[in-house]
Amino acid sequence: MSAARIPFGPQTFTPADAAFEQRVRASFARQRVMSTIGAELTSVSPGEVVIELPFREDLTQQHGYLHAAMITAIVDSACGYAASTLMPADAAVLTAEYKVNFLAPAAGRRFVAYGRVMKPGRTLTVTVGDVIAETEAGPKQVATMLATIMTVGGREISG
Amino acid sequence: MSAARIPFGPQTFTPADAAFEQRVRASFARQRVMSTIGAELTSVSPGEVVIELPFREDLTQQHGYLHAAMITAIVDSACGYAASTLMPADAAVLTAEYKVNFLAPAAGRRFVAYGRVMKPGRTLTVTVGDVIAETEAGPKQVATMLATIMTVGGREISG
Amino acid sequence: MSAARIPFGPQTFTPADAAFEQRVRASFARQRVMSTIGAELTSVSPGEVVIELPFREDLTQQHGYLHAAMITAIVDSACGYAASTLMPADAAVLTAEYKVNFLAPAAGRRFVAYGRVMKPGRTLTVTVGDVIAETEAGPKQVATMLATIMTVGGREISG
Amino acid sequence: MSAARIPFGPQTFTPADAAFEQRVRASFARQRVMSTIGAELTSVSPGEVVIELPFREDLTQQHGYLHAAMITAIVDSACGYAASTLMPADAAVLTAEYKVNFLAPAAGRRFVAYGRVMKPGRTLTVTVGDVIAETEAGPKQVATMLATIMTVGGREISG
Repeated sequence: MSAARIPFGPQTFTPADAAFEQRVRASFARQRVMSTIGAELTSVSPGEVVIELPFREDLTQQHGYLHAAMITAIVDSACGYAASTLMPADAAVLTAEYKVNFLAPAAGRRFVAYGRVMKPGRTLTVTVGDVIAETEAGPKQVATMLATIMTVGGREISG
Repeated sequence: MSAARIPFGPQTFTPADAAFEQRVRASFARQRVMSTIGAELTSVSPGEVVIELPFREDLTQQHGYLHAAMITAIVDSACGYAASTLMPADAAVLTAEYKVNFLAPAAGRRFVAYGRVMKPGRTLTVTVGDVIAETEAGPKQVATMLATIMTVGGREISG
Repeated sequence: MSAARIPFGPQTFTPADAAFEQRVRASFARQRVMSTIGAELTSVSPGEVVIELPFREDLTQQHGYLHAAMITAIVDSACGYAASTLMPADAAVLTAEYKVNFLAPAAGRRFVAYGRVMKPGRTLTVTVGDVIAETEAGPKQVATMLATIMTVGGREISG
Repeated sequence: MSAARIPFGPQTFTPADAAFEQRVRASFARQRVMSTIGAELTSVSPGEVVIELPFREDLTQQHGYLHAAMITAIVDSACGYAASTLMPADAAVLTAEYKVNFLAPAAGRRFVAYGRVMKPGRTLTVTVGDVIAETEAGPKQVATMLATIMTVGGREISG
């Protein structure tokens, strides 16, 4: 399902914490905004996390499409948790910054955000994210993200 | 309240559409997600828009702070509407891309997003945004944005 | 050599202008800064351009690595020309904005910048770029870019 | 000359290292690429650095304007050194990432890059940069940058 962006192919990562999936799922469950908007964590693997959001009318902008900020919300969380899968059990993550390009209006019945680690690091992890809309005409990419995730020792202080 | 970022001081803009404020307020009212999260449009002037969001528990991340995506939501809309204030009545805006740096955890009782036009353009308008948290210890900046807003003729297709 | 970043695999593009390669090579030859720094245009295909830069001592920063701005120079040009390959003969391109993440110090004997179109558009084309260093220990990615390229009618006004 | 971007006015910083100016000037002198392109370090104050670049024909793109990468080079260095002014004597800086918006073609006889600290931090410092062209018609802003600078202990490893 995932493809590497770099020219020499997909990367494989070995997680430092064998319980990474359980840890990520527990943290996601504490992000109250995710249940508020109806987002679901559908896949957690080493260096890659997938979060999905069904279309909802109360999350739209002025023309009835999903608001860009909701697209950003799920892909930001997917990137942050992708970084988190590779970290020690007691480390935590915070989003230092991100950039998003919007490629098409967020029309569709469901939006799937893929977050992937491009370059893990002790302090900074660089991640890429893509959001695909499920439309009647098939899958369509609606956004792409490049995000810098920071590791903080001991506890997670932001998200 | 606002200060220019460029070295030669604040800029003054003359709107092409005298009814810019009414137009922006009507569009904001149609952004259903803004009422869903409780955001308020508190100021609309030529080249600058302010949107505020009171803290709400159901918009938090895993440590009880407001989720970064909610900060992004209000500052993105503030930047987009700041660009919109300078456009002709029949033009519309779409966010092409943005970058956000998160400067501090989004702790506070209220968050105020300032969007300002740095460089207006026929096709692309460059805007800057800042989000200030109202905390018990006083105002604290929690995020900054640099966003590219695209003008599209006739109708607004994204937001 | 190239791999798609999006989950559903590499894209294939059909150029609007059959003489795209000749047009891109002629434009590159007019970028005087490219010959000043010693950059070479090594590959031009639909939606993808490769530019290479051999290490040079007079382009270094304070610790003897290639300066980050030189990495940016070649990947920016690669992205702009990647967009250009898909445009009509009389159109031209300008870089509206870009973001770069630096993944490792630019150590190596040669640096290869890949620019690829992620989403072509009439007005805006979104491109991604990666820079790989050739080192004694093998290839190593040193930077990644996400760039927005604007089409302007008739003539190229920036680069 | 400089103005703060945030709504509550310019910030004042107290450097941790009294010899910050000497330290920054010595590091700049070791950036060989800066002398190669003819850039000059014209001002170093706490949290703000100015670097200037006179126009040169051998640094142009295909239409005779200064190449965007040269604009990026001086504003990147200005931002990195602005962060450096606030750091301890033995710390060093590396550019983690930046975003640049290009606001106008780089026409002019001289380009002045202002780098300023927006938010200092122990590990990450967020900086903003602006580049002003000196043209016959007066000053004109040609680019703006938002950059994340990382502190690394003991020695500077990139730039």
